[in-house]
Amino acid sequence: MAEDNTIFIGEKPFMNYVTAIVMQFTTKNAKEITIKARGKFISRAVDVSEVASKRFLTDQVQLGNIKIDSEEFTNKEGKQVRVSTIEIALEKK
Amino acid sequence: MAEDNTIFIGEKPFMNYVTAIVMQFTTKNAKEITIKARGKFISRAVDVSEVASKRFLTDQVQLGNIKIDSEEFTNKEGKQVRVSTIEIALEKK
Repeated sequence: MAEDNTIFIGEKPFMNYVTAIVMQFTTKNAKEITIKARGKFISRAVDVSEVASKRFLTDQVQLGNIKIDSEEFTNKEGKQVRVSTIEIALEKK
Repeated sequence: MAEDNTIFIGEKPFMNYVTAIVMQFTTKNAKEITIKARGKFISRAVDVSEVASKRFLTDQVQLGNIKIDSEEFTNKEGKQVRVSTIEIALEKK
């Protein structure tokens, strides 16, 4: 259930993500959606949530909790690397 | 006063920002620092706050409030554009 309401931001065209969010709230009647991203896609996740909530769903959704975190792992070269993550909740008003 | 404890993330080398934050907390005894960024620098602001808080100031500072927003303005070509912003607070434990 929860997974249905999660949108992962990556390299697809920007409006794909915005449209997916708008659809979830309007046709699927979602109460809350979580937008997730890692690394360089974090800026994009913020852009997507701002455009979806302020331009397309004005007065219908609001920003909920925002979490940032990071994951450490060992990459292919055996080096310890850290990647940042973000989770932005959008809630139906 | 408040401005002293604000770090704007831009194009300088990554560690400049991390060092500035660590210095503010350790030598200037800051209670709270706000990290701000716009547009593509948002991902970097998250990286900076994660590295500063988790690698350099472990057990000394924690994440505070995180705000995202956007500003609309008219660019040089007369086009309406929106730029996202983020503010991340780091607080002394």
